[in-house]
Amino acid sequence: MAQLRIALAQVNSTVGDLDGNADRIVDWARRASDAGAHLVAFPEMTLTGYPVEDLALRASFVEASRRALERLARRLADEGLGDLPVVVGYLDRRAAALVRAGQPAGAPLDGAAWLHRGEVLVRSAKHHLPNYGVFDEYRIFVRGDRLPVVRVHGVDVATVVCEDLWQDGGPVSVTRSSGAGLLLALNASPYERDKDDVRLELCARRAREAGCALAYVNLVGGQDELVFDGDSVVVGADGTLLARAPRFVEHLLVTDLALPAAGPAPADRAQVDARDGTTITIERHVASPDPVPAYPVEPQTVAEPLEDLAEVYAALVLGTRDYVSKNGFRSVVLGLSGGIDSALVATIASDAVGPENVHAVLLPSRYSSEGSVIDAEDLVKRQGISSRIVPIAGMVEAFEAQLDLHGLAAENLQARIRANVWMALSNEHGHLVLTGGNKSELATGYSTLYGDSAGGFAPIKDVFKLTVWELARWRNARNRSGLPFLHPFAEEPIPEAIIEKEPSAELRPGQRDTDSLPPYSVLDPLLSDYVERDMGRDALVAAGHAPALVDRVIRLVDIAEYKRRQYPPGPKITPKNFGRDRRLPITNRWRENP
Amino acid sequence: MAQLRIALAQVNSTVGDLDGNADRIVDWARRASDAGAHLVAFPEMTLTGYPVEDLALRASFVEASRRALERLARRLADEGLGDLPVVVGYLDRRAAALVRAGQPAGAPLDGAAWLHRGEVLVRSAKHHLPNYGVFDEYRIFVRGDRLPVVRVHGVDVATVVCEDLWQDGGPVSVTRSSGAGLLLALNASPYERDKDDVRLELCARRAREAGCALAYVNLVGGQDELVFDGDSVVVGADGTLLARAPRFVEHLLVTDLALPAAGPAPADRAQVDARDGTTITIERHVASPDPVPAYPVEPQTVAEPLEDLAEVYAALVLGTRDYVSKNGFRSVVLGLSGGIDSALVATIASDAVGPENVHAVLLPSRYSSEGSVIDAEDLVKRQGISSRIVPIAGMVEAFEAQLDLHGLAAENLQARIRANVWMALSNEHGHLVLTGGNKSELATGYSTLYGDSAGGFAPIKDVFKLTVWELARWRNARNRSGLPFLHPFAEEPIPEAIIEKEPSAELRPGQRDTDSLPPYSVLDPLLSDYVERDMGRDALVAAGHAPALVDRVIRLVDIAEYKRRQYPPGPKITPKNFGRDRRLPITNRWRENP
Repeated sequence: MAQLRIALAQVNSTVGDLDGNADRIVDWARRASDAGAHLVAFPEMTLTGYPVEDLALRASFVEASRRALERLARRLADEGLGDLPVVVGYLDRRAAALVRAGQPAGAPLDGAAWLHRGEVLVRSAKHHLPNYGVFDEYRIFVRGDRLPVVRVHGVDVATVVCEDLWQDGGPVSVTRSSGAGLLLALNASPYERDKDDVRLELCARRAREAGCALAYVNLVGGQDELVFDGDSVVVGADGTLLARAPRFVEHLLVTDLALPAAGPAPADRAQVDARDGTTITIERHVASPDPVPAYPVEPQTVAEPLEDLAEVYAALVLGTRDYVSKNGFRSVVLGLSGGIDSALVATIASDAVGPENVHAVLLPSRYSSEGSVIDAEDLVKRQGISSRIVPIAGMVEAFEAQLDLHGLAAENLQARIRANVWMALSNEHGHLVLTGGNKSELATGYSTLYGDSAGGFAPIKDVFKLTVWELARWRNARNRSGLPFLHPFAEEPIPEAIIEKEPSAELRPGQRDTDSLPPYSVLDPLLSDYVERDMGRDALVAAGHAPALVDRVIRLVDIAEYKRRQYPPGPKITPKNFGRDRRLPITNRWRENP
Repeated sequence: MAQLRIALAQVNSTVGDLDGNADRIVDWARRASDAGAHLVAFPEMTLTGYPVEDLALRASFVEASRRALERLARRLADEGLGDLPVVVGYLDRRAAALVRAGQPAGAPLDGAAWLHRGEVLVRSAKHHLPNYGVFDEYRIFVRGDRLPVVRVHGVDVATVVCEDLWQDGGPVSVTRSSGAGLLLALNASPYERDKDDVRLELCARRAREAGCALAYVNLVGGQDELVFDGDSVVVGADGTLLARAPRFVEHLLVTDLALPAAGPAPADRAQVDARDGTTITIERHVASPDPVPAYPVEPQTVAEPLEDLAEVYAALVLGTRDYVSKNGFRSVVLGLSGGIDSALVATIASDAVGPENVHAVLLPSRYSSEGSVIDAEDLVKRQGISSRIVPIAGMVEAFEAQLDLHGLAAENLQARIRANVWMALSNEHGHLVLTGGNKSELATGYSTLYGDSAGGFAPIKDVFKLTVWELARWRNARNRSGLPFLHPFAEEPIPEAIIEKEPSAELRPGQRDTDSLPPYSVLDPLLSDYVERDMGRDALVAAGHAPALVDRVIRLVDIAEYKRRQYPPGPKITPKNFGRDRRLPITNRWRENP
């Protein structure tokens, strides 16, 4: 056996920020070097950020990524880090591009490179391209067909990229025959609730298939609608968990491994059947041939798992923080109604960007209850955020002097006037607008287009109403618990009165959510099955939902989806937590319940 | 040779409307039968509408399509049309679905079926799946691997679907060896400017490759952001154009062909190398074995081509009409400023849904010129649309009483108040909101989020400003020309004063577009190269655009795109005429000109 100290740099990169991402790679490579690592690996596409989507189709961006990679290799050497092999994801292109219809322009590759002594030692690219859920990679990438195996201090280390682990065949399937002692996987795997266990099982299974230890390094951070949770892991050849990074934070996971020493070097190249109808070329290089002298190992890190609500809350805070900062904002503005949704959004915002950067606006109308303003002001005081009151009665009257509106038209007007106010404050002061819609009301259309749904980021758009309450209670209970993503308020940040009150839009006298919607205790499970699991009417009934309720809710969701698509919408509703919009037609006459 | 009268039913179906589309198929099959056709073919996915996008992933929808196909076969027979072979596109699934990661759920197929004597005679599916531009078909379909060859009155007729023509290899490449006398292609090919010539050349080339006549039937109609233009054609085995349907209207193209009589029937099935790494199964069936007795042929239809601006205008009218009607609206509301953009949108709307269904609202502010209201009222009178004046000064003052706004914040407020008014009228009266932004101003961000960009459909979002003027002049010149997509107004519908005036947003005193933007004569060609052709900075300069202007416009477009993505946006800007949004990240720090 040979000893190897590997470092997995679980970092937060930003799409398009080639210089900033390169700085970050150099910084974390130095930390790895300082920790005595023999190898440092970064996540998938760290140099460009992930996902780049259609930017991959712009030739000037692909070239910029390729040049940045070579510059990075030289700079690492110039800064004294040349002897440390650095494995990093970037955007490349296939050299001999097949020009044919249906191929992505320029044949872009989701690349992985080994940098060593000022040079790019070897390049490879993701073989299996995910093209489901939030991924569209057949649109923007062509597949890689190579498994690089690099000898590092006498250990053969193979590299693959993300989806290569999730599908059978391809480079992982030829790893055992390559004789690698370690399989390194670079990932950009977005957060979904409960996905951490799935990933760990996958890594264990692939380690056993490859017959060697497996190191999995994942991106961390919010990027547009996605959140990456880190959760980098190292497992042994038998699938045993050896080390695990904490989630939702940047981290350098340093692990001492005892790995099989490589045998005599075989041929530089070999072509192997990849059991998926393709052939993989195993390409061998040597960074350093001989094992290191024996050294004492450090204790391994195995991060404690987060409880379920902590995981969700941490994702919301990180997603909000990075959306604000990566889009160049430092502060946020939001409407505070005295209800639970805007209260939770204000609290997430305080945790994400600091209470001093949160600007609340209270917009009472003639239908707002006195309690609403009192409760909102109580929250402002507890959290120390700034606030102002802008009564909307005069604006509503100015519209009503010109227009004769009734029912929903009159209700929507109030919501749109409120949106005008926060957009005006955003334009005047440069705050990003946060909007408060939850997944239950967005899915059922219980909101106003260009009104309460208007804003730059909707922190709780993927959170059903029952979970909104759960998170509010959880956040109050964990105040001052020391969790790193919670601001330590002096007292519970959310007034109990806000959590206890019956939900109401307060757009007409005595209005209650239950006037328009079923109770959330039956609505939310049904929405989850219909929106997130795409179950049809019959399947929903078979799953135990009451038929009349199924028909009513399907109608609400389909009409809401239809309206969101007819009109450039407020925040989109997604099939998975933190997913991307479902691609459904705007016009669609087909109904589950005709 | 054997005679065959084929009918291509260039119809307008609606996504999801299985019953309505089936009615339409029966109706047009009867017309084909009445015209003495021996075979009628419908476009790709006529039964479900196209594109179905992620609906293909919902099992209940796939099953509904399959059941609707079988019902349709029985109904055709019940209504006395059973002896007429009907070829129709629908949504199917692969029977033995491979369950593996990365495959679309349920293995959906973009199917084509022959219906005959109450039965589904044979099913096949699109082999080449487009996955670029507006298409995402790797996401939702698996590939077909069959070429059906059906003997109809002694002629062997093969069928393929759309993209199978556009790419090399696959079913078209094995058609010659199948001995087919006619290749039938079912299409849903969206309109792009100047695409008609490309399609005809493609059909001619594939006919020569297949060694037989080729009949190409295309969908017509607007569907969400796409417009299908019809343009169905028949070419001979040497590529000669034999018949061509008019564009942008439903049409039954009936053509008498003299085709090679089929030889003695070979084996029912044969597997052939498809020259693209796959194998295609040729599957033979017999609808009617013997040629028809000789009969006198009818003259062929070859529709006159449309001039360039007529083609664009017809697409705008059809896209608007179908967006309104397929979304269940009958009337539209729009803000009429007295400027050229809203004037053209009003005219398109009058042509699309009739002047009696167009409701204009004039929203003068303290900065509106007197001429603007006069010119808008002149247009209202010329077109006979309904209108009302809603001055916004009082509403602006009500906001200003509460908020101290400056510069852009104050300008945006006015645009958002106007949007509130037309959204309120939409909610109160059930009109769809049309919005007036053109491609030049949307691309450069010269519009207000939730303001002038708010609305359900933006008829001219894909039209650059120079083309807006061209279309307005063209529309006036062609008034009462008899073109079927123009309403015959008594006088020119657009006042000359509106076409002649210098463009201004009128949000502050003396404002002109050229305060913020380069002249449209240099802006528009540059936007076309940057937005539509995705050229990078260096390529733009090499193409002859002034470097300083390139840098300025790239900055405008990137910032506008960035803002549209940060905020749930107004109408999206697209890389192709009538295309779908570019998939670019919201956060993107990479700039062409750093």
